[in-house]
Amino acid sequence: MDWGREAEDRLNRIARCSLPGAGITRFPFTDEHRAALEEIKSWMLRAGMTTRLDAAATLVGRAGTGDKVFLIGSHQDSVRDGGRYDGIMGIVIGSLAVEKLKAEGKDLAVAVEVLAFADEEGVTFPTALLGPRALAGTVDPAVLSMTDRTGETLRDALNRFGADAQGIAALARDPGNVVGYLEVHIEQGPALEQADAALGVVTGICGIERNTVVFEGDTGHAGTVPMESRRDALVAASDFIAAVHDSACRIDGLRATIGALTLHPGVANAIPSRVELVLEIRSLLDMDRERFAVDAVKAGAEIGDRRNVAFSMHRSYQQPAVPADAMLVDALDQACQSVCPTVPRLPSGATHDASAMADLCPMAMLFVRCRGGLSHRPEEYASPEDMAAAVSATAAFLSALAG
Amino acid sequence: MDWGREAEDRLNRIARCSLPGAGITRFPFTDEHRAALEEIKSWMLRAGMTTRLDAAATLVGRAGTGDKVFLIGSHQDSVRDGGRYDGIMGIVIGSLAVEKLKAEGKDLAVAVEVLAFADEEGVTFPTALLGPRALAGTVDPAVLSMTDRTGETLRDALNRFGADAQGIAALARDPGNVVGYLEVHIEQGPALEQADAALGVVTGICGIERNTVVFEGDTGHAGTVPMESRRDALVAASDFIAAVHDSACRIDGLRATIGALTLHPGVANAIPSRVELVLEIRSLLDMDRERFAVDAVKAGAEIGDRRNVAFSMHRSYQQPAVPADAMLVDALDQACQSVCPTVPRLPSGATHDASAMADLCPMAMLFVRCRGGLSHRPEEYASPEDMAAAVSATAAFLSALAG
Repeated sequence: MDWGREAEDRLNRIARCSLPGAGITRFPFTDEHRAALEEIKSWMLRAGMTTRLDAAATLVGRAGTGDKVFLIGSHQDSVRDGGRYDGIMGIVIGSLAVEKLKAEGKDLAVAVEVLAFADEEGVTFPTALLGPRALAGTVDPAVLSMTDRTGETLRDALNRFGADAQGIAALARDPGNVVGYLEVHIEQGPALEQADAALGVVTGICGIERNTVVFEGDTGHAGTVPMESRRDALVAASDFIAAVHDSACRIDGLRATIGALTLHPGVANAIPSRVELVLEIRSLLDMDRERFAVDAVKAGAEIGDRRNVAFSMHRSYQQPAVPADAMLVDALDQACQSVCPTVPRLPSGATHDASAMADLCPMAMLFVRCRGGLSHRPEEYASPEDMAAAVSATAAFLSALAG
Repeated sequence: MDWGREAEDRLNRIARCSLPGAGITRFPFTDEHRAALEEIKSWMLRAGMTTRLDAAATLVGRAGTGDKVFLIGSHQDSVRDGGRYDGIMGIVIGSLAVEKLKAEGKDLAVAVEVLAFADEEGVTFPTALLGPRALAGTVDPAVLSMTDRTGETLRDALNRFGADAQGIAALARDPGNVVGYLEVHIEQGPALEQADAALGVVTGICGIERNTVVFEGDTGHAGTVPMESRRDALVAASDFIAAVHDSACRIDGLRATIGALTLHPGVANAIPSRVELVLEIRSLLDMDRERFAVDAVKAGAEIGDRRNVAFSMHRSYQQPAVPADAMLVDALDQACQSVCPTVPRLPSGATHDASAMADLCPMAMLFVRCRGGLSHRPEEYASPEDMAAAVSATAAFLSALAG
């Protein structure tokens, strides 16, 4: 059996469960979602698993017996015009790993469940991760009343889809019975490609904070206000953007990005009076991230003084880092070593279902190299060879689990 | 007669010829324009002038006799929610200066015409300065076919208003008969206020160029792409914005502004791949402006190399500087000295009707101090005292004109 080729075939087949467009568009609780679950169900059945849709619309495939269970999962949904790998590949690899163990006649020390979560991308509703949060018992009931653009609530969408909004609270697992959670995912970055490695073991999921930064000066006519009288908010913001970027380059593993910026009045012949931008900071070390934010405030205030422009920065969002479980990381590393010559360890800069699962049980993630680090677009690609390595490593990892 | 108070009364009265709103909104060829011309006509009649609407919808008031004529003018129109002084104040001061000379029984050596141009701001049609261009014989007939947002052509608007699009070509004056043109205007900048001076003599109107600058790198996930692998277009653009600003500060009289900027993809969690901005450069010295643009290209290319981002800059618009006439400047300076202790000389960073009139005849401009340098907004303000000084200086200037 060529597990890599089989993974690619399955990903190509399930790619048809999408709205038309350049890439994959599969949102939760849609016909595309339903069709995708039919596909996934067939994979689970081939691996000898029983299947059921849980109250949070997670398709659960189960192999083996006993109260103790190890969970492998990822999400079936995509962004708009996304790629063929993000999320769904983790479900393919998990199912194939169980199928491979079955084909090889290897018994599992604990039961294994493969989980196909409904909504990780958060495109339809202003919330996400319902599936893993339900298992961890961390769903805020208020999210069920959130509405999509058509006005349908998440509660109604779940019930219409055949899940059971009322039953979500009862999904919470007993942590004593859950051995751990593994998520296989494309890296969505260039690190493995640069290291010439098919697989990487994730050390943790970076914490994230977003800050709204405002520089406020004075507008005026671009022709009539002398340079020395100006209070140009964009010039001050520019100093800040370059300073933040250059500081972030000096801190290992930290990422600082200013990706959104608005300018007022925003016309060619008027001095900018106001710039509002979003500074996003990510790090596996919450202390590094917090110290960076403090330094950014200091830098912004100094720049504001120097450019004679008011500066303010306030945090609009924060999510602490989630470390991977050290024992699972070591076990996963060993499983990978049996397949690949080099196995880098790296943080995940993006959030995953694993972030929510960490509230329930020990968590680990396996990253698969993707071409050019590209993700969330049609060009997203992982090779059959790398996916074969992921299937083998995952199977080796599962078979090494103690009872 | 308190000429300053009278000027203020007239400006307050004509402020009613406006669309409703926080400030003055008076566009050409509208009911507001028509009502304003009724007011202006009454001022001209009080100054002993004959009046007529010319083919380009310029209201022309004429005092004195003979072929030789000196022209004083400005525009009746405003930007949306503009102030009470921009443009219209020049017509008020011109009319009052002629009225003052008449009241004092002073004869004019040449005829004087006060001109109330229809459209200087260019809000309604994507062209402006029709009135002065018609007098200078520089109207491109193609502009008459330009349409406003309702689809009406400039030609139809003129004819509907009672002007005569067909007759515009015949408006061109014989330069041999036009002694010169004076425009009185609020400064729209802070220089006179900073110099504690009511009036200033304009040395010329700055040349302007606009350049489209593009920085192009790569986008990517803000969490997954390490800092050192990034090709962030906004970081490069930021270096450029600060460098351009700081260079401009070192060049006397030059103004460089980046007032418009767009960012792609423009979301908080994606590295900016593309920044497009507009660099506007103004100077009374075309050579300074052109040298500055060359240096900006050099700086942009260096920044692009350093930040690993592509850079391009191309000029989208250019308008050379228009020097004021040296003899008129000296005569105006003398007239101002008789009224004010200090009379700064300064360039005009903004374009005026005078820019187009310079193609016909010697041109001069008198700037009146405005509060805080503010213009194009409701807070625009010039004091009655400063306007009285402008009336006196203009009257003195006119009475000193040789035949």
